[in-house]
Amino acid sequence: MADICGNKNLHGGNIYPYLEEKGCEPLDFSVNISPLSVPEEVKRAFVNEADHLHRYPDDECTELRELLSARYNIPSERIVIGNGASDLIYRIAYALRCRKVLIPVPAFSEYESAFAVAGSETDFYYAAESKDFVLDSNFVDAVDQDTDAVIMGVPSNPCGRLVDGTLLKNILEKCREYGTYLIWDECFLPFIEDGLLISEEDFTENVIIIRSFTKIFAMPGVRLGYCLCGNEKTAEMIRRAGAPWQVSSMACKAGLTALEMNEYVARVRDVVRAERNRLHAALEKAGARVVMSDVDFILFQSEDLTEEEFMKRGIMIRNCGNFRGLDETWHRIAVKSSEDNDVLISAITDIMEGRQG
Amino acid sequence: MADICGNKNLHGGNIYPYLEEKGCEPLDFSVNISPLSVPEEVKRAFVNEADHLHRYPDDECTELRELLSARYNIPSERIVIGNGASDLIYRIAYALRCRKVLIPVPAFSEYESAFAVAGSETDFYYAAESKDFVLDSNFVDAVDQDTDAVIMGVPSNPCGRLVDGTLLKNILEKCREYGTYLIWDECFLPFIEDGLLISEEDFTENVIIIRSFTKIFAMPGVRLGYCLCGNEKTAEMIRRAGAPWQVSSMACKAGLTALEMNEYVARVRDVVRAERNRLHAALEKAGARVVMSDVDFILFQSEDLTEEEFMKRGIMIRNCGNFRGLDETWHRIAVKSSEDNDVLISAITDIMEGRQG
Repeated sequence: MADICGNKNLHGGNIYPYLEEKGCEPLDFSVNISPLSVPEEVKRAFVNEADHLHRYPDDECTELRELLSARYNIPSERIVIGNGASDLIYRIAYALRCRKVLIPVPAFSEYESAFAVAGSETDFYYAAESKDFVLDSNFVDAVDQDTDAVIMGVPSNPCGRLVDGTLLKNILEKCREYGTYLIWDECFLPFIEDGLLISEEDFTENVIIIRSFTKIFAMPGVRLGYCLCGNEKTAEMIRRAGAPWQVSSMACKAGLTALEMNEYVARVRDVVRAERNRLHAALEKAGARVVMSDVDFILFQSEDLTEEEFMKRGIMIRNCGNFRGLDETWHRIAVKSSEDNDVLISAITDIMEGRQG
Repeated sequence: MADICGNKNLHGGNIYPYLEEKGCEPLDFSVNISPLSVPEEVKRAFVNEADHLHRYPDDECTELRELLSARYNIPSERIVIGNGASDLIYRIAYALRCRKVLIPVPAFSEYESAFAVAGSETDFYYAAESKDFVLDSNFVDAVDQDTDAVIMGVPSNPCGRLVDGTLLKNILEKCREYGTYLIWDECFLPFIEDGLLISEEDFTENVIIIRSFTKIFAMPGVRLGYCLCGNEKTAEMIRRAGAPWQVSSMACKAGLTALEMNEYVARVRDVVRAERNRLHAALEKAGARVVMSDVDFILFQSEDLTEEEFMKRGIMIRNCGNFRGLDETWHRIAVKSSEDNDVLISAITDIMEGRQG
């Protein structure tokens, strides 16, 4: 059982050991993607383009960059498409060649891994557990003139809280002052709003914004993300830091279709808001310490509601013991569909009442 | 017309400017993939797996690594799967952190680009034009104790000749003596034979072999390659040098299916052998200087048979002016199907007889 509990996994969503042992998918609350499945239109766009497997992809991803350019009113030369956001995190780390990078934690572990393999020294700012890991103005003081880059989730994974607007502004100013690259990972922002958090004026040459199709459109199998850069030169450096043809034509077509699906996104937000409240309440009722979330997952602390207990009931959740600043008592669950959440909530009741899994 | 002549393209196979201008695919001799199209079975395996776009890929590519392990009798821990061979070239360059790398040229330009962005100094050994760019024993002397790595195509692109076995043995010995990484890019070897060129005994810890599904199965849209490493540690370094989830599940399933298609590969070899001879003869008849090839493309020199002349007739070929050691008079064409080659041969006749395109 230990093997399929995910303790060895660096990330959520690794269903393969379970698939192999049981022959079916688990009910996966460990992966933090949209509770509505990948839109049929997106899937169709992907599959239709598979008629062209004999072609190399368009290495420029021209069509997709043009659509994003129009959407965000940013020249397409400042946009880089990646094979998922993770590809871009590594390209950025290699391109910037920083000596010292500051990462507020808990955070997505690939920030640290990417900058470490790129030879950067990684410093960590530990957000206060007593404040539910919400960043405050002390973080701004942690940025000094030796800080070559700051990389942070807006909102962060695994905490899920949107960073306060005034604080973001102060971080922007401090980074601009020191010529520090400021990298915002906005992969979960689409669960809250459509536009960019940053104003045109604040989008200076040191700023890089990472976004992904994976989370909001529930399409981790497609591999598609992008970044918006403060200037063309940075975008070109990031592009050149990785191999050509990394983004498939199928992914580009899926992305083009996804960008039109405003109604789907609105529905996702409605479901997430309602269901998040329900899950939050159920966890609190079971005595867990629950961190307020703005997105499609919830971080909580409990000695009872463990990964092992859920797994006995065919449910995967994400133990957060391998996040810096967290220990094995912290867990993350996705906000899923009403039906799936019913199953989770009834498992919570069972676990608390000591019923067998 | 200049825009769609490919002079600005770093690689063959960029049909997109043509597609955009003309609304249809050109007859593409610039891309050097199998003349038989991507096998239907491979396409079906790819499309079927697209039912699982809601899943993250298996970051370990377990099934594919196990099949390759059995095929080459190498532990799966020494195998890394990549998002195409180009992804692996960059991962290798970043992982090895070489000071000095030696590249025999003319060569695939991504060797130089990858090691350059990884911060390595790249030295070039210019194979003699007078000997049709065939490597000889002088190359072994170019490897010295400061050489941290050698990367070379076996056979090379754009020359297409398999390197002599004794020479390979001498290169292996010299590299082993100096602790120099020796990276063989065998992406075109499957057009010649199934197995590995290297013996188990020679496959020491400094050796890395890159292979691709792209060329032999005509599936550049799939993005799938792998490398076999001399030891587990090197494989782990290469794996960690890039982001997780770079290889899609669709690509893995396509690869698993492709590896069973021995009959397809045999047919490709037959067609390539026969058609290559025919094209070689037609080029020589038109007064071109033609380099003997062992694979599915031919390098030739001609002042008459230019990219522009072919493009006037709806045919894309690869001008090799941007390869180190070659100039604008050198061109590369793929060996395609009998029908496609008929069109090319008749274009050659037209060009030589001064008929309008």
